[in-house]
Order: sequence, then structure tokens, then C-alpha cells
Amino acid sequence: MQILKTIEELQDIRKNINSNVGFIPTMGALHDGHISLIKKARLENEIVVVSIFVNPTQFLLGEDLNTYPRKDEADKKICELCKVDYLFMPEISTMYSEEEILIKAPNKSYILEGLARPGHFDGVLQVVLKLFGIVQPTNAYFGKKDAQQLSLITQMVKNLFLPINIIPCEIVRENDGLAMSSRNVYLNNEQRSDALLLSKSLYLAASLVAKNEKNTSILTNKISEMMKNLNVEYIAIVDREFNEIETIELDNTIILIVVRFEQTRLLDNIWI
Amino acid sequence: MQILKTIEELQDIRKNINSNVGFIPTMGALHDGHISLIKKARLENEIVVVSIFVNPTQFLLGEDLNTYPRKDEADKKICELCKVDYLFMPEISTMYSEEEILIKAPNKSYILEGLARPGHFDGVLQVVLKLFGIVQPTNAYFGKKDAQQLSLITQMVKNLFLPINIIPCEIVRENDGLAMSSRNVYLNNEQRSDALLLSKSLYLAASLVAKNEKNTSILTNKISEMMKNLNVEYIAIVDREFNEIETIELDNTIILIVVRFEQTRLLDNIWI
Repeated sequence: MQILKTIEELQDIRKNINSNVGFIPTMGALHDGHISLIKKARLENEIVVVSIFVNPTQFLLGEDLNTYPRKDEADKKICELCKVDYLFMPEISTMYSEEEILIKAPNKSYILEGLARPGHFDGVLQVVLKLFGIVQPTNAYFGKKDAQQLSLITQMVKNLFLPINIIPCEIVRENDGLAMSSRNVYLNNEQRSDALLLSKSLYLAASLVAKNEKNTSILTNKISEMMKNLNVEYIAIVDREFNEIETIELDNTIILIVVRFEQTRLLDNIWI
Repeated sequence: MQILKTIEELQDIRKNINSNVGFIPTMGALHDGHISLIKKARLENEIVVVSIFVNPTQFLLGEDLNTYPRKDEADKKICELCKVDYLFMPEISTMYSEEEILIKAPNKSYILEGLARPGHFDGVLQVVLKLFGIVQPTNAYFGKKDAQQLSLITQMVKNLFLPINIIPCEIVRENDGLAMSSRNVYLNNEQRSDALLLSKSLYLAASLVAKNEKNTSILTNKISEMMKNLNVEYIAIVDREFNEIETIELDNTIILIVVRFEQTRLLDNIWI
């Protein structure tokens, strides 16, 4: 595995690759969720590139940019073990200049995460577009956990006609059901235990749907009831394009929950 | 020459090209300025792609979107004669969907053309990025006449680390000095004659610089004096990054003029 710090190094290498390139952009603090993306990419591509870059433009003022978990040495080991070919770890000053062309997520993205974190997705799209420019991947892998992000990146690639396949990957969970997240380390024991209600309530909702309950208000109420002791930020039932829906559409629905534990926001969702 | 209407056709062709691709994006109504770009591309690339697309998102409300000169048949002939390989002529509905990721030119672009036409450059960058996504050119050719546009496109490519060379091309002029523009057809005889003052005053300024006049206020006044009977929108002397300067910097200066003839804005500039 080669670790690259500069864009020029990576571009020079990329120029001479004619086979498929699989790409997993990350902010590091790699967990089994990331590893599942890397493994999938490893199976599907001749060359696998991982980037680790805690992107400042997607953090809002007051968010956890400075405390975001960093585990560079462990991350390198993980990538090495997963047989990554190139690990790209640029500095902020490598990725950004003083004045930048900006990317604006569409107005309709200002719901759910876009509403809770205004400008967040502009930063996500900006850094992903930069990374796509550098890596020129054939296939790029994103987890379904950040469902709205995945939807917007898919839209960006479509809008800009980039010759890149966006590959959505399943959520990976701890044994007890908690969705993997680099931010789970922020939780204390009590919060960690309460956090199980996210996946549990999603599973409940899915089982009700399986029993033919299609009314999204009823489902939302059931989830809400189960989470009544938590600081729920939102429960949403949307189609794959993030329009709110009144009736579950099989193979076209996502149920999303966000719960806040002090400063930590935990996201989970289930695709139906 | 193959004429393509859909993105899929062009993408399919592009996939199988491994040699250099030169690209000239245009809004059609091709004149000798465009032809010089095409000829340059023809010399420097195995494959040459021209696009003709009157991009609605770069026109402001009340501008000449609906009356912009269209000469599809003549344009096809010109491209054929210039040995273009692929002429891409998409419809608006091919290029745009209902909801779009937007590109925002940086705040510092809201001067000169950016100030006169707020939002114009956002539309330019959006369509250029789309076209770059489709064509994946090695080299893309732009005239120096739209100097601020050229500067912003260069910045976008740099910001997004696109593996594309932006090739600035010299302004082509009529025999009497008028810079070629598709909008010159809007001028009546008197205006056409008055319009000669643009290039004449730029040449005057350049000759003064050659005689060691470096003070930009003095130069601006000289130009201004020569144009006193015209409706001058702005005269600006900037460095290549469009910062206004007080003293001419050789090989790093652009002098720009915009004059309005009724609804028609004529641009000209000279690079020093």
C-alpha cells in the first residue's frame, strides 16, 4: 500500500491506470462500516483508493471539527490489511485554496439533515467533487447510513454526467444493533444503551410494514412512542428521493431517525 | 463528422477513446473566433469535439436568450469543414433536470461582468462542468475575449483538480479591429462604426504602456476620453486574477472595456 499526501502524486499514478478504480472517501476513524465498503471495492475493482480527510467545509460552526476522532495509525493498518492500493491523506491546505468555487445542494435538500445542519451538504458535495476530480474513480462506495448524503451525491453525479458509478452499501451494525459510526465513541454507557432504541424502533417499524401496516403516520407514532424518553430530533419516512410520503412504497422507502445525546447526534435508518 | 444529440451517445463514444480529446464548448453562431479555437484544437488533439448549446442558466431575466442568434445549419457546415470529429447539440431538457446541484462562482467574481450580470457566471460554470463531465476532454479551448469567464473556468478546474488543460486563445478581430462576437449582428451601421472605438482605445492604451506609461488611472482616463460619446459600462485594468491594479504589471495585466449599444453589450480587452 502506498500512502500519498499530495494531489500530484495521486494524479501521476492515476494517469497510468487503465483498469477499474474503486474509491472510498472517508473522514478516518475507520470502523466495520468503512471496512465493508473497502472489502466490496476490493472485490469489484483492480485498484482500490481510500481517502482520509476530515473535511472542514462540511462542519458547521460549533460542531465537532476539532474533536472529531482521529486514528491515523490504526486507519493505516486497517487499510493495509484490507489490501488498499493507495491511501490518500491530504492536508487541508492541499485540498483548499483561499477562494473557492462553491457547490450548492438544491433547495429541496434543506430538510432533515440539511435543515439541522444548513450548509453541511454544500461542504460534502464540494469535497466529494474535489476527490472525484483527483481520483477519477470508476466506482465510488458510500454507506446507506448517511442516506441523504448518498442521495445528493448520486444526484450530483447525475447532474454533472460524471462517468462514475455510485455504489450504495448496507449499514453495518454492532452485534446489539447499533449502527456503526465514528461518533459512537462520544457516548457514555447510559447513552450507548439508550442508543439501542434507534435500531430497535426501526426494526419494529419494518416488522409492522411486513404485517402490512403502510400508513406512515401510524408508523411514525409507533417509533415515536418507543423513543419517548430520548431527545428525538426527527423521525421521517420518505421515498428514495427524500419526498415525505403518506403510504409506504415497497422498495422505495427510507425510514430515518435522528436522536441527540447532548452534543452527539446519532443517525440511523432502514431501507424498505 | 458525427452529430450527437444525446449524452449517452457521446459517453459511449468517449469510453472507447484513449487518445487526446480537444473540446470547444460554444453557443453556436460560429464566427472566426470559434474557428480559430477549433483549428488550434485540431492541431493539438487526435479527437476534436465541439458543442453547440445556448445555455439558459447563464442568461439573466430580460437578456437575449430567446433572440440569441441561431445558425445550426451554417454551424454544422463550419464544423464539418474544420474537420471536427463530434458535434454535440443537446436539447435543454437533455442537459438539465428539474432540480439541480448549483455551482457558485466565488464572491470575488461579483465585479465587472459578474456585477453587471449577477448569476451569469454560476450558469457558465454549471454548464461547463456538465460538458466537461460528458466530454472528459484532455484540452478545452476558450477565447480570451471572455476574459473573466476564462479566469473563472481556470479556477474551477484548479479547485476541483480536474485533469483538463484550459487553453486560452487569442481574440480574433474583423479587419477593422472589432473583436468577433456572435452578438455583433445586433449592431446597426452607426453602432458598428462606433464600436471600432473599443479596439482603437485598447490599442492606444497598449501603445502608451509600450512608451512606459504604467499608471492605470492615467490610462483609464485616456481610454475614457476616447470613448466619451459612447455608453461605457466599465473600463477596468486588472491583473490576471482580476484584482484591480494601480500600476501596469507586464505579462500580468488585462485592460477591459464594456460598451452598451441599446440592449447590446460589447466586450473587448487586451492582455498586456
